[in-house]
Amino acid sequence: MTQHAQSFPEIPRFAAIEQAAERIRGLAQVTPVFRSTSIDQLAGAELLFKCENLQRVGAFKFRGACNAVWSLPQAMASHGVVTHSSGNHGAALALAARTRGIPAHVVIPDGAVQSKIDAIEAYGATLHRCAATLAAREQTAEAVRGQTGATLVHPYTDPAVIAGQGTAALEFLGQVPALDALIAPVGGGGLISGTAIAAAAIAPAMRVLAAEPAGAADTWTSLQRGERVADFEPDTICDGLRALVGAINLEIIEQHRVQVLTVSDDATISAMRLLWQRLKLLVEPSAAIVLAAVLANRDQFAGQRIGLILSGGNVDLDKLPWTATGA
Amino acid sequence: MTQHAQSFPEIPRFAAIEQAAERIRGLAQVTPVFRSTSIDQLAGAELLFKCENLQRVGAFKFRGACNAVWSLPQAMASHGVVTHSSGNHGAALALAARTRGIPAHVVIPDGAVQSKIDAIEAYGATLHRCAATLAAREQTAEAVRGQTGATLVHPYTDPAVIAGQGTAALEFLGQVPALDALIAPVGGGGLISGTAIAAAAIAPAMRVLAAEPAGAADTWTSLQRGERVADFEPDTICDGLRALVGAINLEIIEQHRVQVLTVSDDATISAMRLLWQRLKLLVEPSAAIVLAAVLANRDQFAGQRIGLILSGGNVDLDKLPWTATGA
Repeated sequence: MTQHAQSFPEIPRFAAIEQAAERIRGLAQVTPVFRSTSIDQLAGAELLFKCENLQRVGAFKFRGACNAVWSLPQAMASHGVVTHSSGNHGAALALAARTRGIPAHVVIPDGAVQSKIDAIEAYGATLHRCAATLAAREQTAEAVRGQTGATLVHPYTDPAVIAGQGTAALEFLGQVPALDALIAPVGGGGLISGTAIAAAAIAPAMRVLAAEPAGAADTWTSLQRGERVADFEPDTICDGLRALVGAINLEIIEQHRVQVLTVSDDATISAMRLLWQRLKLLVEPSAAIVLAAVLANRDQFAGQRIGLILSGGNVDLDKLPWTATGA
Repeated sequence: MTQHAQSFPEIPRFAAIEQAAERIRGLAQVTPVFRSTSIDQLAGAELLFKCENLQRVGAFKFRGACNAVWSLPQAMASHGVVTHSSGNHGAALALAARTRGIPAHVVIPDGAVQSKIDAIEAYGATLHRCAATLAAREQTAEAVRGQTGATLVHPYTDPAVIAGQGTAALEFLGQVPALDALIAPVGGGGLISGTAIAAAAIAPAMRVLAAEPAGAADTWTSLQRGERVADFEPDTICDGLRALVGAINLEIIEQHRVQVLTVSDDATISAMRLLWQRLKLLVEPSAAIVLAAVLANRDQFAGQRIGLILSGGNVDLDKLPWTATGA
C-alpha cells in the first residue's frame, strides 16, 4: 500500500471498530440474526442472516454515519454535517445528526428514490437539489460546506464511516461464532471494508466475500486489472450498489484478499423474493444479493456455516421488480 | 351460555392455554415484539406488535394446530389428521403432523392461494382437491376421514386449537406487561377467542378488541343482532378472515365482551404498506388490519399502550393490492 499512502486517509485499525461500537452503543440497534430451515435446504449450507434491514433508518449505514457524527469535536459538530448521498447514507446521516442535535444537509440529485428522500426529510435534514451528475453533487455539497461550515461525511471513504460499518461484523461474530465464511455486498465498499478489518482481527481463518452486481462490477474488474477502474456506468437494480468503489476501500479489500462474486440482477430478484417469503423480512435488492451469491455458487459453500449481512430494507414498494408496473 | 351447551364442545379454560404452552414449547417459536417510533407518532399511542408472522409456517395458526396434534392419544394420532382449510391452518396442520411423524391430509378447494398450497405440499401433507364450496370441502374431508381414520382438526372451533391460539396472548403479555388494550383480527374466531380467555385470566382490566373486515363483518353483525349470522358472502382482501365466525368462538367473544372494530380494505392496505416500510416485516392483509383498526379509531386509543397481534405474513407477492397487476 506504500504507493497509495498519500491518496487517501489512514486505514482504520480494528481498535477503531471497537471504539466505534462503544460510541454508537444505545444509539444503533443491536440487530437480530435470522435463519430459515427451507433456505438452508435450498443452499445446502447453514445460513445465518444479520438483519441490518432492522437497523435504524433500515440499513447498516446508520452505524457509520453515527460513528462519524459522534467522532467530531464539538466545535466542528456544531456547524453540522453534509453529504451528497441521497440513499440510505443520507437518511442515516440525517438521523445521526439529530441524535446529536446538530444540522444535517443532504444533496439530492434528480431521480433519487422518492421513499428515501421522504425518509431523509422526515429525519429533519435540509435538502439541496441538484442535477444527477457526480460533478453537480460534489459542487453542491462543496457550496453547502462553504456557506455553513458543515463537515462533509463521505458515504464510504471516511475512516470513521468504515469503522462504524465494521461494527456490524463485530456484533455478528459475537452472536454467531465459528463461521466458515462471511459475505457482504460491495458498492462503494464501506461495509465490506469494515467487515474485512473486523473479520481479520476476530476470525482470521474465516473467508470474507463480497457480492457485487454483474452490472456494476467495478470492484471485481479493478481486482482483475490490478488497478482501480476510473469510471463506469452502473446498470443494476441494486440502487445501493451503484457507486464506484472507493480507493481506500479497494485497498482494504485487496489487503484482506476478499473474494468478489458477481451476481446477475435476475438471481438477486429471485433471492429477494425468497427472503421476503421465508424470513418474512423486507430486504432491498442490494441486500438480497448476498443470498443470490451463495445460491449461484452452491459448490463453493456446500455444508458450510455462512454469515450473510442483509444490508438494508428500504424498498420502493411501487416499483417491485417482478411486477409489470415496476418494469 | 346454558342454552348453547349442547351445540358445541366445551369452552377451554385458561388452564388449557397454560397446558398448551407447555405442550408446544420448543416446537413453536417464541416470537419477538417489534415497535416503531414513527408508527407510534402516527397513532398517537404506544403500539407493541407481536410478530406471529415470524411464527413457524408464517402464522399463529401453528400454535393451535400443534396443540391439537400433540393433544391426541397415540392410537388416534397414528391415523393422522385432516382439515379442509387451504390457508395458514392447512400449512400449520401439515407441519404440526410432521413434528409428530403422523400423516396429514389437507382438502384444497379450487381457487386457493398458490403460495399457501405450495407451503402445504412442502410440509409433506397429502392434498385432496375439491370444488370451492363449503359442502364440497366438508364432504371431501369426511371421505378422507372415513378412508384413513384421520382426526378432523377444525381450524377454529376445536377447543385444542382455541387453547393453542391463546398461547400467543399468554406469551405476549409476559413480554409486555401493563397494556391498556389488546387487539387481534377475527375471521373464524380461533385467535380472538383464545386471546380473550388468556387476557381475562392474566389482565382482567385490559380491553380486548377484534378487528374485522367491513366486507366480512359477520361477527360484528352477529353481536348487533344477538344471534349468529347463518351465512354470508365475504368480500375482502383479507383472505385469512373470510370464514364465518364459529358458534363456540362467538360465545367466547360475547362472554368476554370483546369489542369488534370493522375496517375497510383500503385502510388495511395502507396499514400493510406502513408495516412493511417501517417495521421491515412482511405481514399479510389479515394481520395488518389490527393496525388499520387503531389508526381509524385514534381517539379511542390516544396515549394508550396497545398490544397488536400481527397474525401472519403469507402474502402472494404476485398479487399485491397496490399494483396494477395485482388488481
